[in-house]
Amino acid sequence: MTVRIGVIGTGAIGQSHIERIERKLSGAEIVAVTDVNQELASRIAATYTEGARVYNDDSDLIAAAHVDAVLVTSWGPAHEASVLKAIEAGKPVFCEKPLATTADGCLRIVEAEVAHGSRLVQVGFMRRYDTGYVQLKHAIENHVIGEPLMVRCVHRNPETPESYTTDMAVVDTLVHEIDVLHWLLDDEYESVQVKFPKKTKHAFSHLRDPQLFLIETKKGVLIQVEVFVNCKYGYDIQCEVIGEDGVASLPEVPSIHLRSAGRSGMEVMQDWKGRFVDAYNEEIQEFIDNCKKGQEMTGPSAWDGYVAAIMSDAGVRAQASGEKESIELKEKPSFYNYKVTEVSR
Amino acid sequence: MTVRIGVIGTGAIGQSHIERIERKLSGAEIVAVTDVNQELASRIAATYTEGARVYNDDSDLIAAAHVDAVLVTSWGPAHEASVLKAIEAGKPVFCEKPLATTADGCLRIVEAEVAHGSRLVQVGFMRRYDTGYVQLKHAIENHVIGEPLMVRCVHRNPETPESYTTDMAVVDTLVHEIDVLHWLLDDEYESVQVKFPKKTKHAFSHLRDPQLFLIETKKGVLIQVEVFVNCKYGYDIQCEVIGEDGVASLPEVPSIHLRSAGRSGMEVMQDWKGRFVDAYNEEIQEFIDNCKKGQEMTGPSAWDGYVAAIMSDAGVRAQASGEKESIELKEKPSFYNYKVTEVSR
Amino acid sequence: MTVRIGVIGTGAIGQSHIERIERKLSGAEIVAVTDVNQELASRIAATYTEGARVYNDDSDLIAAAHVDAVLVTSWGPAHEASVLKAIEAGKPVFCEKPLATTADGCLRIVEAEVAHGSRLVQVGFMRRYDTGYVQLKHAIENHVIGEPLMVRCVHRNPETPESYTTDMAVVDTLVHEIDVLHWLLDDEYESVQVKFPKKTKHAFSHLRDPQLFLIETKKGVLIQVEVFVNCKYGYDIQCEVIGEDGVASLPEVPSIHLRSAGRSGMEVMQDWKGRFVDAYNEEIQEFIDNCKKGQEMTGPSAWDGYVAAIMSDAGVRAQASGEKESIELKEKPSFYNYKVTEVSR
Amino acid sequence: MTVRIGVIGTGAIGQSHIERIERKLSGAEIVAVTDVNQELASRIAATYTEGARVYNDDSDLIAAAHVDAVLVTSWGPAHEASVLKAIEAGKPVFCEKPLATTADGCLRIVEAEVAHGSRLVQVGFMRRYDTGYVQLKHAIENHVIGEPLMVRCVHRNPETPESYTTDMAVVDTLVHEIDVLHWLLDDEYESVQVKFPKKTKHAFSHLRDPQLFLIETKKGVLIQVEVFVNCKYGYDIQCEVIGEDGVASLPEVPSIHLRSAGRSGMEVMQDWKGRFVDAYNEEIQEFIDNCKKGQEMTGPSAWDGYVAAIMSDAGVRAQASGEKESIELKEKPSFYNYKVTEVSR
Repeated sequence: MTVRIGVIGTGAIGQSHIERIERKLSGAEIVAVTDVNQELASRIAATYTEGARVYNDDSDLIAAAHVDAVLVTSWGPAHEASVLKAIEAGKPVFCEKPLATTADGCLRIVEAEVAHGSRLVQVGFMRRYDTGYVQLKHAIENHVIGEPLMVRCVHRNPETPESYTTDMAVVDTLVHEIDVLHWLLDDEYESVQVKFPKKTKHAFSHLRDPQLFLIETKKGVLIQVEVFVNCKYGYDIQCEVIGEDGVASLPEVPSIHLRSAGRSGMEVMQDWKGRFVDAYNEEIQEFIDNCKKGQEMTGPSAWDGYVAAIMSDAGVRAQASGEKESIELKEKPSFYNYKVTEVSR
Repeated sequence: MTVRIGVIGTGAIGQSHIERIERKLSGAEIVAVTDVNQELASRIAATYTEGARVYNDDSDLIAAAHVDAVLVTSWGPAHEASVLKAIEAGKPVFCEKPLATTADGCLRIVEAEVAHGSRLVQVGFMRRYDTGYVQLKHAIENHVIGEPLMVRCVHRNPETPESYTTDMAVVDTLVHEIDVLHWLLDDEYESVQVKFPKKTKHAFSHLRDPQLFLIETKKGVLIQVEVFVNCKYGYDIQCEVIGEDGVASLPEVPSIHLRSAGRSGMEVMQDWKGRFVDAYNEEIQEFIDNCKKGQEMTGPSAWDGYVAAIMSDAGVRAQASGEKESIELKEKPSFYNYKVTEVSR
Repeated sequence: MTVRIGVIGTGAIGQSHIERIERKLSGAEIVAVTDVNQELASRIAATYTEGARVYNDDSDLIAAAHVDAVLVTSWGPAHEASVLKAIEAGKPVFCEKPLATTADGCLRIVEAEVAHGSRLVQVGFMRRYDTGYVQLKHAIENHVIGEPLMVRCVHRNPETPESYTTDMAVVDTLVHEIDVLHWLLDDEYESVQVKFPKKTKHAFSHLRDPQLFLIETKKGVLIQVEVFVNCKYGYDIQCEVIGEDGVASLPEVPSIHLRSAGRSGMEVMQDWKGRFVDAYNEEIQEFIDNCKKGQEMTGPSAWDGYVAAIMSDAGVRAQASGEKESIELKEKPSFYNYKVTEVSR
Repeated sequence: MTVRIGVIGTGAIGQSHIERIERKLSGAEIVAVTDVNQELASRIAATYTEGARVYNDDSDLIAAAHVDAVLVTSWGPAHEASVLKAIEAGKPVFCEKPLATTADGCLRIVEAEVAHGSRLVQVGFMRRYDTGYVQLKHAIENHVIGEPLMVRCVHRNPETPESYTTDMAVVDTLVHEIDVLHWLLDDEYESVQVKFPKKTKHAFSHLRDPQLFLIETKKGVLIQVEVFVNCKYGYDIQCEVIGEDGVASLPEVPSIHLRSAGRSGMEVMQDWKGRFVDAYNEEIQEFIDNCKKGQEMTGPSAWDGYVAAIMSDAGVRAQASGEKESIELKEKPSFYNYKVTEVSR
């Protein structure tokens, strides 16, 4: 059985998922697409699929009988409505981040899903599928380093366009650490604070860069995340967990070692796109596999999308206040409980 | 269009390819299987496929109209006959190593393929698809290290069963370096010699272990390959190319870094199966993609299978003689020429 | 000419310096010793020196005509008085940390030295003499990484005795980073704050461990220092400077690389004594060389001792308050200005 | 007591040892110098020493009553005569490599020393004093990697002057590995063979570069040494010992890690002078300490100088013959036996 997927939004990320489903992954095909730009939708359908039908809007696509599952890759403000419609239709839905642009919107999706009675939603946080993070999680769960006490993360990009603003350091950049760390630690966030070091001359005048986020968890773990998006030298993701018995860190991105021109070392990746390409494949393959077996989604949940929204709001408040901002979550439905600690592979 | 594949031989490697085609890769399905053990073939078909038909033998399977392409994963002595039948039927065929158990057998396949007029055969040498080797090849082709002068390889396994004999160090172990290195260097082999260092106490009494192979190429590159199959500490594949302007080496297998119990470092892989799993996926995906597009095979060719056979024979002779053994190849059909230098991705 | 040195305090650190001067370094000899334990002083003189005279107290030793220079390695509370006497006598004095147990005491030494008119005092902060830190300083001064924006340090010990208290994390441990970082950055401290992550079960009940110090400099650099003195796995000193154009880090302690028993990596040093042994030699050799040439001291100055005292006080206050504590220094005498940026080698 | 040293030969290496004895090391002073260039000898005496007397020739210097020990740092052909005179005078003598320019010359020194009845000679092979090699030796002796089976060494220089000839790859370059490896393995050499890979375009036309030496020991260990003296990228010394239970390698030269300009890694040393500077200090300090205590020399012996000469001759023969050349040593006087395995620290 092949899973028949409809895609809402055929921009860059939509195209990338369409291509991976059609050419790289197993068990699914794209049978329907839609986009506010209908001409683009048609062109993408023609380029990558074997006759995917172009729909006028998300409602029609979701309702279509030949669509088994839905990918939401439209722009952020449109996510909530599409996801709610998919839940209403009882169809599995993979939604790129953000799940919704507000915490309230995320809550509405959570409530709809709980009312539906089974998990239909997977949010597009891909880091949990990266083999490095999976190895880190295994190390923690197998008590290789004892209880985690601190986590130190680095999120560096070589540069940003002028349109990148200070709050995007939270909403677009830090959000990846926000999602992966509470999964990694099997813990919940308590507070977030921001420190602004001396600003790099390489950032546009309106942007505070770098920033250092200090996040505390319910269990008392202290997380530091350096976000430095104009670091010039490359794209660099680091994560180190300091435990009672040892320290475990993400591996370096594998790259040939060179000794030449007076230096010994390797190239640093310049473009984030290559860093998590295997993780993108894994997250979508897991979505397809779950659809195929008719079982609940096991990836990042609507609740995780809600947590990311609440944390992002607090992070932006912390940028303005300079103070430690508390994290206040609604009661977590027991519906979501058992999935948090699960390692997908 | 989905490529419909028939599999000849449903043992361990056959099952592994069936599973990856059905559950991991894009664009193909298993529609036919056969094995000398028909009961096994039926069980595998039932476990992994959606109704693949079980055939009595390779001839029937290859002849079946609904079979577009063939995987030969039977035991070595049966490979040649199956591959020849597939060429005769004009169907693309992926054959696990060895292509044939003799150099003459490989030559017969080369001749049949040349007579057919287009490349139908891909041999299952997967290292060319490993990202590390691909990066090394790019570095060489882009003159990052200048002209290669020497290559140093290490091929270590933690241990071997008693059935592993001294000649298998060439035929089963060194053969992977034999294939990947002439591709990597875009060069041909001139001679091979073997040195036997002091023997490890961990090898069975009949086995010479470790062994050091010294291989010269037509261009004068001196290759050293250490084969050490009872090294105890793990599975470890190293390759370093020393060029006129620099040295490039394979990356370490990515693994989390640990500081614990007085040591800093990482785990070494114990099992070879995990080392090249991505490369296995890539080689089969490329086979499928070429079938799908109706184009010639671009992976390791029948000629490469022949080179491996000639080199393996010379390596075994060199073990016995202690001398430098020359490599005598037939004239290479121009038919194969342009593919040698091609990097698949 | 041989520099004739008198040593005040023949405990562990005193003995270690005596031994290095007598057996390892060039240009000096120990001619006088004293200790509150006269019997110990005599035994040490007999063991390591060629007839060093044993004095009753520091005053007599400092006044002795055959003593060219003085080492103060007594217990902390006695340092101030001995150093003041040496200044009064116009003799060069190397004083182990702390220069004095209070900031006021340090100030009195500063004032005495300024009144004397030339630098006589070197404080025993040895990290500035470590080749790794010296390389870091050169990288910064040569603009290899651009302007420093952040510094991240780790100071980990495998374990502490029960006598180690929470404030010692500042006074005994962090103090090394305090000294080396303002020298490294050629900058002054603005504030210090402390965060307490979840406590390790391996620390005694009275001790907060680990601790994270956040230090801001006048130029806006944000320094993080993790002090974790029961990390179990070893003694580990890390320092990374994040600049506008790149990141530079201390090298790992050189140690043979091992592949064995399923792991690849190296041993981590367990004992701090081995980590900076070359730096100890360098600091004392520089003291001797300056004495020999009759020139001013060039190492860590009395002012640096004062800065360390002020910062230590603020760090201990910050542990209690949980708040950001400001650093208030007296006006720095111009007398000390040109030395701060100097790299000793 | 201060050891009073006379130096024969005040060229570059002589000056470097004079400077380290006068300014860096403990327990010795330079009291006498001589050189064929008397004016140079006078200038060096004036620059570095406190009144060292300038002698007309080695005989006068060695005979001088105020000279306790001798350093021979003249040009190679003069070594033998000076060393023999020092032995005759019963004075300890440190002789830079080569001990003598012929194996017969070395033998004459061995015989003179045996006749004298105690070890007076230390040959200037400094690698045994490098902490990396010392750690390797400890690992072997403590059975960390089991019995050694193979050793792989790399000796690379960035470039050579036109005067550097093919045989110098043995006599000047490989000779360091020759000395350190039989000490490291506590083993004797059996044979040596040379392979010439493709030649680098960066070498002068008369020079074969790189070269690969294959050396067998009495215990059956197979040693590979790559000598590549125009590798362009830097000075790089590697040594890896492959044992029955694991593999141990020399640490990289410690250097700050840099992430900048798209690369992650470190600088490679360009000049060999900095690589073993600590080892030079250690070897001379050990010589001084032994002199001071009036005990036998414990460093590389006259016998080791003889072994180096025999091996160098065989290596040069092997370059010409292309064959495996056997090593034929005289019977080793028991006089030298116990020192070979000794680790100096």
